[in-house]
Amino acid sequence: MIGIILCGHGHFATGLYSSIKLIAGEQENFDVIDYEEGMSSEALSEKLYHAIQKLHMVGDVVILTDIAGGTPFNESAKLSMEKENINVISGVNAPLLLDGCFKRDLPINQFVEEIVNSSKEGVKMFKRIS
Amino acid sequence: MIGIILCGHGHFATGLYSSIKLIAGEQENFDVIDYEEGMSSEALSEKLYHAIQKLHMVGDVVILTDIAGGTPFNESAKLSMEKENINVISGVNAPLLLDGCFKRDLPINQFVEEIVNSSKEGVKMFKRIS
Repeated sequence: MIGIILCGHGHFATGLYSSIKLIAGEQENFDVIDYEEGMSSEALSEKLYHAIQKLHMVGDVVILTDIAGGTPFNESAKLSMEKENINVISGVNAPLLLDGCFKRDLPINQFVEEIVNSSKEGVKMFKRIS
Repeated sequence: MIGIILCGHGHFATGLYSSIKLIAGEQENFDVIDYEEGMSSEALSEKLYHAIQKLHMVGDVVILTDIAGGTPFNESAKLSMEKENINVISGVNAPLLLDGCFKRDLPINQFVEEIVNSSKEGVKMFKRIS
């Protein structure tokens, strides 16, 4: 089973997880890490490191983050250099995460490809045009 | 100035806003509405209605939601049928919202097009490949 770590600035991670939990229920092998105001990047990295260690016992790991170039993404990318089979994705939205919750037994490359597609297909616009 | 309403299941909206606030600071003419467990769709609709009324005094309104087909998106779409110049978008992520914070004086159609592009461009993948 693919382990998932959800991590972002402020309460991005706990907020998004609370949304998905209402739709898809509680998830196993799933860690939620908030990078809160005042927290050092070292402290965040340590939390990510321990979550990766734990989830790697079950399978490959995907770290889902809020925004490329931010500390959660950067620290995740650094840690992914130290081990194989860690994927880091930025720009995560609810359709990506929801799709991911149902596909955690896919091979890792297919998993990443499919959830990234779901992310893009999940952006829909609606307006009255007349 | 384009008014923004951010709305989703659980604490999606307050969580995502807390992330963006750390990066771009507090936003004006910006409402954050959580659709919490146990809340009725009517109660959510009423909150959305009042937020739209308030923001419409300043300009056009864009409602950013977590997922198409969910109650926050559906109730927003219903309300957008009653008035002109309300756009509803699903699948919102941090790159979309961050870009939106800096472009609130654009014409509404251009605003929507640009932030949807930012949403898709903001989905990046990173892994060690050897």
